[in-house]
Amino acid sequence: MSATLALAKELIACTSITPHDAGCQTLLAQRLTALGFQGERMNFGEVDNIWLRRGQKPPLFVFAGHTDVVPPGPPDQWLTNPFTPEIRNGLLYGRGAADMKGSLAAMVTACERFINAHSEHAGSIAFLLTSDEEGPAIDGTVKVMETLQARGEKIDYCLVGEPTSQKQLGDMIKNGRRGSLGGRLIVRGIQGHVAYPHLADNPIHGLAPALVTLCARTWDQGNEDFPPTTFQISNIQGGTGATNVIPGEVEVLFNFRYSTEVTHQQLQQQVEEVLSQQSLNYELEWTLSGKPFRTMPGNLMAAVSQAVRDITGLDAEFSTTGGTSDGRFIAPTGAQVVEVGPINATIHKVNECVAVADLETLSRIYSRLLEILLTE
Amino acid sequence: MSATLALAKELIACTSITPHDAGCQTLLAQRLTALGFQGERMNFGEVDNIWLRRGQKPPLFVFAGHTDVVPPGPPDQWLTNPFTPEIRNGLLYGRGAADMKGSLAAMVTACERFINAHSEHAGSIAFLLTSDEEGPAIDGTVKVMETLQARGEKIDYCLVGEPTSQKQLGDMIKNGRRGSLGGRLIVRGIQGHVAYPHLADNPIHGLAPALVTLCARTWDQGNEDFPPTTFQISNIQGGTGATNVIPGEVEVLFNFRYSTEVTHQQLQQQVEEVLSQQSLNYELEWTLSGKPFRTMPGNLMAAVSQAVRDITGLDAEFSTTGGTSDGRFIAPTGAQVVEVGPINATIHKVNECVAVADLETLSRIYSRLLEILLTE
Repeated sequence: MSATLALAKELIACTSITPHDAGCQTLLAQRLTALGFQGERMNFGEVDNIWLRRGQKPPLFVFAGHTDVVPPGPPDQWLTNPFTPEIRNGLLYGRGAADMKGSLAAMVTACERFINAHSEHAGSIAFLLTSDEEGPAIDGTVKVMETLQARGEKIDYCLVGEPTSQKQLGDMIKNGRRGSLGGRLIVRGIQGHVAYPHLADNPIHGLAPALVTLCARTWDQGNEDFPPTTFQISNIQGGTGATNVIPGEVEVLFNFRYSTEVTHQQLQQQVEEVLSQQSLNYELEWTLSGKPFRTMPGNLMAAVSQAVRDITGLDAEFSTTGGTSDGRFIAPTGAQVVEVGPINATIHKVNECVAVADLETLSRIYSRLLEILLTE
Repeated sequence: MSATLALAKELIACTSITPHDAGCQTLLAQRLTALGFQGERMNFGEVDNIWLRRGQKPPLFVFAGHTDVVPPGPPDQWLTNPFTPEIRNGLLYGRGAADMKGSLAAMVTACERFINAHSEHAGSIAFLLTSDEEGPAIDGTVKVMETLQARGEKIDYCLVGEPTSQKQLGDMIKNGRRGSLGGRLIVRGIQGHVAYPHLADNPIHGLAPALVTLCARTWDQGNEDFPPTTFQISNIQGGTGATNVIPGEVEVLFNFRYSTEVTHQQLQQQVEEVLSQQSLNYELEWTLSGKPFRTMPGNLMAAVSQAVRDITGLDAEFSTTGGTSDGRFIAPTGAQVVEVGPINATIHKVNECVAVADLETLSRIYSRLLEILLTE
């Protein structure tokens, strides 16, 4: 069994449902302190975070990742126990196999391989690990970054181990992420009996034209790095359950994934304009989950591209699509941030898995990246 | 205490939450059999119904009513115990005071007054009482009417005791009701992550333009007897609760209150056309709660109008507005049907009440109506 597979299995066996770490960080720290990393716990609230650093010289290269996983969902739909790692047909099954315990294991074995060969490497290497990536993301990477910034500890390069690959390991690298802006809209009317609509004011009827406008609008055209901004309604809820009552209010949750062509303030203003044009009596709460960020072509993008090519032979595509990642908390400090990890087809689903062979390949991509950046 | 008030209080003290009769029909039957009515239980399922008839000659005049009441709602919002009749400031409080135990009491005392004065009246008088008007209305008046029709027992005139008055007792009489047609629409899309909308199909986005069309449409202009048809959405529900998931389906409940200018088939067809134009993948279930009915000017309308004028001095307005009533099951047999009863401002609400003075006035309207129709 490869060292990466063995460690990935140990991590999967920890039931670290967000925001719980369940011992993962201790496991990882044991391996890294043996390599000369200095560990520092940075726990906030119920969230476990750890910062492990080896060396004090610049440039500082950081592996960023999370030990928490999303809940397993219906256990009877799993082929295996989600917290008992099991290999079937060359695939390692378990919650977190791809997102992102496989990547964490690969980061550690990459460091072991690299440091054994280059104990006097240039720069420094660090790990930023949190148990709060799949949850509210309030007491995790954000707080660690605040702590590092407060003491002037600056990250130059950061690799986030999110599962970015589409069909083959290494076929896609993220060099940024869209922004995510959420809205909770409540439109109020006047409750009444459906037989007396003139005495009521149906908020669903009032809202409908605004929804059509919002759903149909083109917010921007995107740009070279970002696809066009999208608007999606995730939830709508109105009514008492009774079929003869006009409801007094309706609630809509929606989300923007937005490019760098607009700001969250512009999106908010445009939505409010649409609602005002319909003369709606409404209440609107905004949640900015993350501003868009991107890493411009430079040392890190060139190095990660070369590392993938050297190990897999693939010319990886750079992309900013998909969900957000903790990279959004690291990039604003000026760090170059990329994300590369396993195939993401099964993440957040039942029967999450990763190809056993990909674990070792990923470890080699990571150690090749360290070689390029910290020895050449 | 007037006889009508005393009987109304006895009825309110029976906790007859739909579909329970809780002894009301027995109370009423005791009073009516003492006047020479022949009682016949017609129970179906858990619903109590009774048919009480005095005389065999035509024309047959029927008092129709229900002994069940809607649930009281939050007890702490009541000034009184909803099932303990209590008089405050000239108002009798209690669930069912206005809808329609006050009317039932007035019907009985009207018969007592009328029959004591005219024991050899023309025609026949009957009572059709059910405990299933506020509920599904499946095992109540419908079933009694089927039974009567099966044996050729034909109703000529029917007065339903629904609370039709607006501001003053007798100011409004219903000579028909709009139809009520309900729809349950499910629009299906493809569930997905909000970050990958191109891999999903948001059914809320697809539905919105159809809702705008349906809400804005003029279905008809109404006519002399009916206000224009109205469309109202009572409930809308879509989403998993998660803010990052595009839902796989959305459900909408809606209701038409419709005039005699359209048929339920025409309304159904128009809705389906709108949904088809939007190329929606949908499922639609229809529930026809009642077709519209109206009583044309004739003996009954003239008599009830005169009775109201004789007792109150008011020129009542005839109307077909408001909810449905069990009149919809009686009118299709060819009976002339009107509805006249107490002020409806408090029905189905907490602190339901009726003016004590109105109970006696209503009894006199009913007995005057019997005089006009069955003695003159």
